[in-house]
Amino acid sequence: MADTLIKVDLTQSPTLNENIHNRWHPDIPMACWVNPGDEFILETFDWTGGFIQNNDSADDVRDIDLSTVHYLSGPVGVKGAEPGDLLVVDLLDIGAKQDSLWGFNGFFSKKNGGGFLTEHYPLAQKSIWDIHGMFTKSRHVPGVSYAGLIHPGLIGCLPDHKMLEMWNTREQELIDSDPSNTGLANPPFAATAHMGRLTGEAKDKAAATAARTVPPREHGGNCDIKDLSRGSKVFFPVYVDGAGLSVGDLHFSQGDGEITFCGAIEMAGWVHMKVTLIKGGMAKYGIKNPIFKPSPIKPVYNDYLIFEGISVDEQGKQLYLDVNVAYRQACLNAIEYLKKFGYSGAQAYSILGTAPVQGHISGVVDVPNACATLWLPTEIFEFDINPTAAGPTKFLDGSVQMPISPDVK
Amino acid sequence: MADTLIKVDLTQSPTLNENIHNRWHPDIPMACWVNPGDEFILETFDWTGGFIQNNDSADDVRDIDLSTVHYLSGPVGVKGAEPGDLLVVDLLDIGAKQDSLWGFNGFFSKKNGGGFLTEHYPLAQKSIWDIHGMFTKSRHVPGVSYAGLIHPGLIGCLPDHKMLEMWNTREQELIDSDPSNTGLANPPFAATAHMGRLTGEAKDKAAATAARTVPPREHGGNCDIKDLSRGSKVFFPVYVDGAGLSVGDLHFSQGDGEITFCGAIEMAGWVHMKVTLIKGGMAKYGIKNPIFKPSPIKPVYNDYLIFEGISVDEQGKQLYLDVNVAYRQACLNAIEYLKKFGYSGAQAYSILGTAPVQGHISGVVDVPNACATLWLPTEIFEFDINPTAAGPTKFLDGSVQMPISPDVK
Amino acid sequence: MADTLIKVDLTQSPTLNENIHNRWHPDIPMACWVNPGDEFILETFDWTGGFIQNNDSADDVRDIDLSTVHYLSGPVGVKGAEPGDLLVVDLLDIGAKQDSLWGFNGFFSKKNGGGFLTEHYPLAQKSIWDIHGMFTKSRHVPGVSYAGLIHPGLIGCLPDHKMLEMWNTREQELIDSDPSNTGLANPPFAATAHMGRLTGEAKDKAAATAARTVPPREHGGNCDIKDLSRGSKVFFPVYVDGAGLSVGDLHFSQGDGEITFCGAIEMAGWVHMKVTLIKGGMAKYGIKNPIFKPSPIKPVYNDYLIFEGISVDEQGKQLYLDVNVAYRQACLNAIEYLKKFGYSGAQAYSILGTAPVQGHISGVVDVPNACATLWLPTEIFEFDINPTAAGPTKFLDGSVQMPISPDVK
Amino acid sequence: MADTLIKVDLTQSPTLNENIHNRWHPDIPMACWVNPGDEFILETFDWTGGFIQNNDSADDVRDIDLSTVHYLSGPVGVKGAEPGDLLVVDLLDIGAKQDSLWGFNGFFSKKNGGGFLTEHYPLAQKSIWDIHGMFTKSRHVPGVSYAGLIHPGLIGCLPDHKMLEMWNTREQELIDSDPSNTGLANPPFAATAHMGRLTGEAKDKAAATAARTVPPREHGGNCDIKDLSRGSKVFFPVYVDGAGLSVGDLHFSQGDGEITFCGAIEMAGWVHMKVTLIKGGMAKYGIKNPIFKPSPIKPVYNDYLIFEGISVDEQGKQLYLDVNVAYRQACLNAIEYLKKFGYSGAQAYSILGTAPVQGHISGVVDVPNACATLWLPTEIFEFDINPTAAGPTKFLDGSVQMPISPDVK
Repeated sequence: MADTLIKVDLTQSPTLNENIHNRWHPDIPMACWVNPGDEFILETFDWTGGFIQNNDSADDVRDIDLSTVHYLSGPVGVKGAEPGDLLVVDLLDIGAKQDSLWGFNGFFSKKNGGGFLTEHYPLAQKSIWDIHGMFTKSRHVPGVSYAGLIHPGLIGCLPDHKMLEMWNTREQELIDSDPSNTGLANPPFAATAHMGRLTGEAKDKAAATAARTVPPREHGGNCDIKDLSRGSKVFFPVYVDGAGLSVGDLHFSQGDGEITFCGAIEMAGWVHMKVTLIKGGMAKYGIKNPIFKPSPIKPVYNDYLIFEGISVDEQGKQLYLDVNVAYRQACLNAIEYLKKFGYSGAQAYSILGTAPVQGHISGVVDVPNACATLWLPTEIFEFDINPTAAGPTKFLDGSVQMPISPDVK
Repeated sequence: MADTLIKVDLTQSPTLNENIHNRWHPDIPMACWVNPGDEFILETFDWTGGFIQNNDSADDVRDIDLSTVHYLSGPVGVKGAEPGDLLVVDLLDIGAKQDSLWGFNGFFSKKNGGGFLTEHYPLAQKSIWDIHGMFTKSRHVPGVSYAGLIHPGLIGCLPDHKMLEMWNTREQELIDSDPSNTGLANPPFAATAHMGRLTGEAKDKAAATAARTVPPREHGGNCDIKDLSRGSKVFFPVYVDGAGLSVGDLHFSQGDGEITFCGAIEMAGWVHMKVTLIKGGMAKYGIKNPIFKPSPIKPVYNDYLIFEGISVDEQGKQLYLDVNVAYRQACLNAIEYLKKFGYSGAQAYSILGTAPVQGHISGVVDVPNACATLWLPTEIFEFDINPTAAGPTKFLDGSVQMPISPDVK
Repeated sequence: MADTLIKVDLTQSPTLNENIHNRWHPDIPMACWVNPGDEFILETFDWTGGFIQNNDSADDVRDIDLSTVHYLSGPVGVKGAEPGDLLVVDLLDIGAKQDSLWGFNGFFSKKNGGGFLTEHYPLAQKSIWDIHGMFTKSRHVPGVSYAGLIHPGLIGCLPDHKMLEMWNTREQELIDSDPSNTGLANPPFAATAHMGRLTGEAKDKAAATAARTVPPREHGGNCDIKDLSRGSKVFFPVYVDGAGLSVGDLHFSQGDGEITFCGAIEMAGWVHMKVTLIKGGMAKYGIKNPIFKPSPIKPVYNDYLIFEGISVDEQGKQLYLDVNVAYRQACLNAIEYLKKFGYSGAQAYSILGTAPVQGHISGVVDVPNACATLWLPTEIFEFDINPTAAGPTKFLDGSVQMPISPDVK
Repeated sequence: MADTLIKVDLTQSPTLNENIHNRWHPDIPMACWVNPGDEFILETFDWTGGFIQNNDSADDVRDIDLSTVHYLSGPVGVKGAEPGDLLVVDLLDIGAKQDSLWGFNGFFSKKNGGGFLTEHYPLAQKSIWDIHGMFTKSRHVPGVSYAGLIHPGLIGCLPDHKMLEMWNTREQELIDSDPSNTGLANPPFAATAHMGRLTGEAKDKAAATAARTVPPREHGGNCDIKDLSRGSKVFFPVYVDGAGLSVGDLHFSQGDGEITFCGAIEMAGWVHMKVTLIKGGMAKYGIKNPIFKPSPIKPVYNDYLIFEGISVDEQGKQLYLDVNVAYRQACLNAIEYLKKFGYSGAQAYSILGTAPVQGHISGVVDVPNACATLWLPTEIFEFDINPTAAGPTKFLDGSVQMPISPDVK
């Protein structure tokens, strides 16, 4: 039986737990050490550290301080790991904590984080998803049930000083390129940094340059890849002695793109993993970013409705091979379609963010239009959403809606 | 048995065939008419109309006049189809012509079309793929064999005048936005227009505004969606009386993105299809772009190596949530990996363009980095490409290479 | 392009074609020779050589002389093949002949061949299935459509004299064990033997001991394995110099067990294959019967209704771990279920015989009951056959039925 | 969060737990009651109630008293359930108990239970399988690792008196048909009956006729269907008021047929389920045995080696369409094949019993030979077991073997 090396108490603040951190920095001390070949379990907070509650108000989604996220468990030191190695992580299983069998999804206010469709859904909204064994349902989004594609939204190893500096430099350059300061990236922010076991002056010093956790980067990090799910095997670049593996931001289910940003179906839980090493693997295999192999056990949906989008925006403006715009159009097309069956736009948006929808980069060379496709599994619906000659049936009467919280002031 | 309504003679120029056209315009007369419920077969040229040859020189890829493509079969009129309907097309089967059991893939010169990785592979290159029943292999790219995911790169209905004008307007605006005229889009070009049965003055007039076929648009068109494959069912918006369905640009296999641009495994062939109508379906289902359901018969690969890419470009510059850049990095990462097994970069690039690789929009909200993943099926390789502690084996000795043709002058 | 080494003319009797044979015997001369590594195509008659017609009468099913079947194309000699080798056959593709895009299914009369449920359906019945590209539908069995799982019912190499003698001996012993002579097996029968190029005395002599083609045996033969479908790779034991590969009895689709016996969806067609050798492979791998690897391209159905059966027969008698009885019960249970939606028993039986249903040996040790399961894909039906609280809807009104032909006399 | 309605203490004898029973009888009182729509959890012993230990001796397998099995949790009463209804059970999740993360597989001695291949492996043997998250490995069977296809071997509702009498009658007739009394079936046996809450005289009376749990029967029971796995939905016939659902005999993984009998990978654990009713569903849908729908989350293996078997036995005797013999031959063929890679026969037999191998009833009408196929997933092996021209490599040196315990006199 694998030992639980890091435990979390969901009734406590994550900032009181010294095996938790919310920044990336090589000076964060290892929370614990393991040997190659070891199996172990890490418990995790949800990415907000418990800020979002299981209730019917979106106020918490509106009011969250996003400088506090993500609360990660680790870093775990792996004996013998050296820069240039590949750390092979088998995600043997992942689950929710037994005292917390639910997750949340939401859209941030456009004024505080936003999301992929924030121009269309600019206000904070939330849906709660109950976990029923391997399945989930929501009291706010009727008519759908998904088998869980459980995965960590965020997992990766500590950067070294050089890589950290590179991150900070390039992201600051992006920030600097935007005089109106609309939040293209988030620079280090010491005030809300939680640096694990690092305290005092050392903490203050490191926190001043510690990287925020939102973006995915060379080490993996907040990739939000739904298929990096329990049962998969991941090969992570190692930058520091001991590797320093951290994990958090567990998702019960998510669609490609995590378009709702807040986020997937977000949950607290645990990760059961095994680590081994490929010495010198980065050079051997020419690895810059992590690679992985998918799980042999995952939800298999076979029947899809596939929506196309091209890179012409909502105002009819032609963009040049812009996959983001194309995918946004595919998403908007799917939402319009689902409305015909009685969903509100917000509910349809939530489905695209939480169900195991696929987002494919279908065509990226046919100037000037990129083409993206959104694959919506039909088997998640309790009614038939396929097009027929008779036209759609409004299965939902609109009596159930998602909580919404207008911006204050 | 379904009738073959349009035949092509591969030894003749497509411009001599009045059931072929290479522009979109509502005035192109129907090549033939069918009734809803009919099954029929259309033969097609390859997208270049036979310009690219089955040989070991990339000169034709270098020298092609891209204003001549794509040669499409149609338009097929469907009795009773009216603007606002959905034309339901069952792709009952698709195949190569028996006298042409091969296809080509290539990269255009950066000076003439380019491709997704044209900065890295700026010269014309070509590979030829032989078709062996349901499988393909190339004499220029050793060690791989794929089961065919046969699909039309291009299929859709005629635009009406209003839609055509919208296309031309928005694309011209894009062209106009680029003073250095680097080819962001292609405006109408009458000189090489082939307008099917339209001749004389009427042809000249229409050709002056007829849309080029390269981009996918609202009607579908050149979507290059690999999963719109034989066995799938597609729902097309109808804009003109009779719908006017045209098809061409058949692919034996392709990866998500068709990153090599020239293109997938391009072939001449035939499409066996059935058409029905959903009257008023566009409004009933809120349809702007085509939607489709995937085929129950397609190559199923289960084991993948998945490469991540983020939106930091090759020079280390940070882009803001740019999926194109992220997918390009994932592709480059995969190419570096494959080189370790003995492939040239060009061969690896060809594999990504031709094999049924998946390109997923994995994360698109985690500022500032988009995350894209490229899924490479391991089962297409004749040797094991999985990472191991021992490191990779060079299975290929480099003795087989792809033809390359330097730019002239 | 692969050469067609054997052609068949469907308007002629198969007995006039010297590249066809309907018995197994080592003296049958090779119809043609190929080299290891060669690709080639063989055309085939349907297993009855054209006796069953595309019409609406089951008289031909009732009246057929089963001593005439199966008409096989071959044998193909493979240069260098020797006893003890494994002949590796890649089934690169299989299809119907363009002048014969249909197939038949039926039940033989209990008096002439019968079938798995002949006690319940003792009279000759027939259904005709039209081939629409990769799909099939029947005018006699409404409401279903299948993607084709095309495969040869019968394929294998010539036996040597010793193996032939073993077959004849053991099968005669079985016949002799049944004094009432109910047809437990079929001994050699010279009168209707067609021995390919063998003529005159040599033919008469060989025909006297040539094995009938109905049973599968060590060499493969009439295995009727639905998953040995186009795209699969088969490893056949070789018993004679040159191997002598023959093939026929093509099926467009079939369920596990081929329970209707006459048969799957039976068709004339062609097989595109490639042969190679594993020298001494039988001993190297301990091979007695063929082994194979399934195709990467085949119909994929994901949603099933699964029916259980146990080894208690229709009269309530307890059998000991008898999988045949258990599978028969599972089949009968599925038929009763389908009747609730409006199918006749015969139509339901036809569906189980022709659709890609799976038959699993689920439990075979829990004395005294074997347990078998029949997997019915729900996606082949045009209506929903899942159980609901409301109960089933009779989608079919019984106006369409299968032809039936009472026994004469 | 679902309540755990039945708990088990693995350190105690199951006979001390009044919510456990090892016989089927309508008089066994409900252990607890639920409402339709309820979700709940039942813990279970392994089928032997803890007799088989996690050690390296097969003595316990040899010495077990099989009259004591299976120890089931229940019966659970469902309010409102009446005879003729269908009880719909959603198996929301199933797992091992955290204090017991292992399972066992073995062969019984031919003198005490035997197994499908007991003539070949007549002595008691055992292998222990450790559970690593969603995967399993054995210290006795090297080189394989499976993703868990977790399922209850045994689940079903209480019979009524009439059905119980029918079972006892027909099974006794089978026993009586065998004068040498070789154990064709097991009659009621009061001495080791554990009847849950039933005590005293009532217990003694019921135990005298209570059915043994080994065979699957009309109610489901010990079906050992590997695909009735977590995530599946089962429709059970109801015979008594309240239904009386019991479950036990959990398996972490099993092959079709459960050929090793002792058994799958047997484990103690828990089942999380939800129950609803279809009133009068047995008549509405013509249901005699349970039906079910498979899970959307299960191990997906894509690459198989498929072994054929025909109904000619090991001595060369021809049987008539006997699927059992054909499947036995397919199993023996697979074992011979695996030996070439270094497995002992016993280890190969264990793999066929425990891995998610498929057993298909491939042909059942081609007199006189039935044809069965065994599908062995190649992806469970740590090395390549595909046939190649070079022949097999002995990856295992035989240093690891399965414990064996000779019969004692």
